[in-house]
Amino acid sequence: MTIDLASRVYSHRWKIDPIVRSLIDTDFYKLLMAQSVFHNKPDVHVEFSLINRSKDVPLAKLIDEGELRAQLDYIRGLKLSRGESTWLRGNMFYGKRSMFHPDFMEWFENLTLPPYNLERVGDQYELTFEGSWPEVMLWEIPALSVIMELRSRAVLHKMKRFELQILYARAMTRLWEKVERLRAIGDVRVADFGTRRRHSFLWQDWCVQAMQEGLGDNFTGTSNCLIAMRREMEAIGTNAHELPMVYSALAQNDEELAYAPYRVLEDWQREHDGNLRVILPDTYGTKGFLERAPDWLTSWTGIRVDSGQPEEAAETAIQWWKDRGEDPRKKLIIFSDGLDVDQIGALYSKFHGRVRVSFGWGTLLTNDFRGLVPDDELSPFSLVCKAISANGQPTVKLSDNPNKAMGPADEITRYKRVFNVGEQKAMDVIV
Amino acid sequence: MTIDLASRVYSHRWKIDPIVRSLIDTDFYKLLMAQSVFHNKPDVHVEFSLINRSKDVPLAKLIDEGELRAQLDYIRGLKLSRGESTWLRGNMFYGKRSMFHPDFMEWFENLTLPPYNLERVGDQYELTFEGSWPEVMLWEIPALSVIMELRSRAVLHKMKRFELQILYARAMTRLWEKVERLRAIGDVRVADFGTRRRHSFLWQDWCVQAMQEGLGDNFTGTSNCLIAMRREMEAIGTNAHELPMVYSALAQNDEELAYAPYRVLEDWQREHDGNLRVILPDTYGTKGFLERAPDWLTSWTGIRVDSGQPEEAAETAIQWWKDRGEDPRKKLIIFSDGLDVDQIGALYSKFHGRVRVSFGWGTLLTNDFRGLVPDDELSPFSLVCKAISANGQPTVKLSDNPNKAMGPADEITRYKRVFNVGEQKAMDVIV
Repeated sequence: MTIDLASRVYSHRWKIDPIVRSLIDTDFYKLLMAQSVFHNKPDVHVEFSLINRSKDVPLAKLIDEGELRAQLDYIRGLKLSRGESTWLRGNMFYGKRSMFHPDFMEWFENLTLPPYNLERVGDQYELTFEGSWPEVMLWEIPALSVIMELRSRAVLHKMKRFELQILYARAMTRLWEKVERLRAIGDVRVADFGTRRRHSFLWQDWCVQAMQEGLGDNFTGTSNCLIAMRREMEAIGTNAHELPMVYSALAQNDEELAYAPYRVLEDWQREHDGNLRVILPDTYGTKGFLERAPDWLTSWTGIRVDSGQPEEAAETAIQWWKDRGEDPRKKLIIFSDGLDVDQIGALYSKFHGRVRVSFGWGTLLTNDFRGLVPDDELSPFSLVCKAISANGQPTVKLSDNPNKAMGPADEITRYKRVFNVGEQKAMDVIV
Repeated sequence: MTIDLASRVYSHRWKIDPIVRSLIDTDFYKLLMAQSVFHNKPDVHVEFSLINRSKDVPLAKLIDEGELRAQLDYIRGLKLSRGESTWLRGNMFYGKRSMFHPDFMEWFENLTLPPYNLERVGDQYELTFEGSWPEVMLWEIPALSVIMELRSRAVLHKMKRFELQILYARAMTRLWEKVERLRAIGDVRVADFGTRRRHSFLWQDWCVQAMQEGLGDNFTGTSNCLIAMRREMEAIGTNAHELPMVYSALAQNDEELAYAPYRVLEDWQREHDGNLRVILPDTYGTKGFLERAPDWLTSWTGIRVDSGQPEEAAETAIQWWKDRGEDPRKKLIIFSDGLDVDQIGALYSKFHGRVRVSFGWGTLLTNDFRGLVPDDELSPFSLVCKAISANGQPTVKLSDNPNKAMGPADEITRYKRVFNVGEQKAMDVIV
């Protein structure tokens, strides 16, 4: 075999092998939300925090603090490149050019991410980010993917060369079998939502290519902007819980709080139309959210189902549209909560024809290494990075699954009262 | 990714992608036998012929005649390289240096393979080689591996990039699982005998590395000289049916014929000792061969079981040693007929402790792509290349499985009479 001497020498000069090498190695919706926040709430001071919901994964034992700092420092050194900027400014997203406005782009071009606070507490890390909302929010995805991949590396480091080769052979075979099963189900439209809890960047990139080759046009794109740019795919995503969480934390009283989740969408509606008008209704309970929703929301294109019993949430949405005189067959439901092929197939069978159905497939697309190493050390786990306060006020999330709720207990009680959330069914959170 | 421009340009200049790139990309026993023939029967004129026992594999439809000629012509252009010559002259084989004598090496260094005759007949190729025995015999392995790999390429050519990646991922996973199962069985000693019917050269090379990493010292080596040289492994092999077949064809009368298989071993014994003194008794029936064997053969180290019911043949061998006052526990039985892991495990369980056991694992090590593509188009099939005549006399092989018998009907009848072969049990020939 011919060795490319220059590239080998060059590679050996890296002090670290950086995991996140671009500010757009992040989810597309983060940029959409950052622009919205940049326009509407640029000065809100927020704190984001890493939360490892899988206490049995002792991150601080697995990941060296120095390595973690080196990776985070590397991210702080990143700047938007000229090509990335050109792509964001000029590319068509969701059928529209100039999605990102010149003022936002100028801000983004000059951005470096704010400092981080890292401390080891027991076997876990406390990792927090503080500062202005549009800056801090862009830490979420890189922070998660760095930790996920450092954990992968820690496990892979112990493996021999052939074990590694077989590991990836098995993982590839597994994913390809999933792709073939998806193809067999029918006209199932799926996007990659797996950046944040991916096994590694290169693995996500491979998974995305496998989806494209296997599903063709039914693979609707990836949430990862860097991969979307490089592979000339659609960048996919709309909005997330952090918008209602922060808006709600900023509410001055219960009345403002009750309306905060709709205020978010009022702001969103000014910027976006079509398939970007997707409601994420579960932050404080889907049922109550829809019941109290202002009429203008019924004209929105779709609803994203991200917690609780997905069939139940979808039925609730369909009934809501019907009750409000809308034709559900023209509406879109995006399922995105802990999906794998069986569930995608079941949901597709149940809802296609009744509503437009689409899937955001995350962790079990880009990180299904379950059972492939002893003690399941490469299994995905439930790591999130959330806004925990805004202008000093704690944020709260209830969701349709109480196991996904977060916030101080007294505030959770208050939110449950304001949003009239009754009994909820607890479900395991796998990923 | 950095592209090595020079090597890319260089690769594009190849007119073909040669399959056999070295005269030592062949089985070690071919060289041992070639030396024996070079010393004992250098002037015998032989004809070798390709025989596709799998009539359902239409080789001439799958493989382009021009491509086949180009590959065979490429082989005719090969010369032993200086490094290969040095390795053959200086390396220790079976614990012995200077295995290959200077006169043989000088001949080999000047060798180019004789012409071939290729003709399409229906959906099959007739491929024959004629000339002096030591030259022609060296065509066998390259001819087989070229045809096997051209057939693989014909199937692979239709596949897309990801399908190819998954195909190899699955094949690697399958082989690694076999290696792990072998390791779990116990102290099983296995060598690679898979050159002739390998999926491809690079695949054989990968399989051999996987065996080495997985089995460690229990992987005793490879029959492939080129791989043995490059990977610094033991080159493995002793002798084959062509010796008794040609010696027998040269016999002037029935008496000479009856002794021919022993004459072969007399010649062999003059050159080799220890683990190279391995009897291949099945050419004209194992049972009769052993019954009539001269006493000096009982001192030989082992017996290779290459057809029929392996348990039966091994029991016959053990009983023979006992009857002749030898301790079977000091003797070696090498199983080499169409093995896969289950059979290796069963034979190991049955015979270890009673006799030294070793395995020559061939086609299902280096070409187990069964079930990995539609219509099983990559499954191995039963292709051989055999001496069919010597000095104008047809050769005959009976073997312990009548489905492996070859030769003209009247000669088969004569051989059965001379070697007193009774009823034989027919068994399917898979590979």
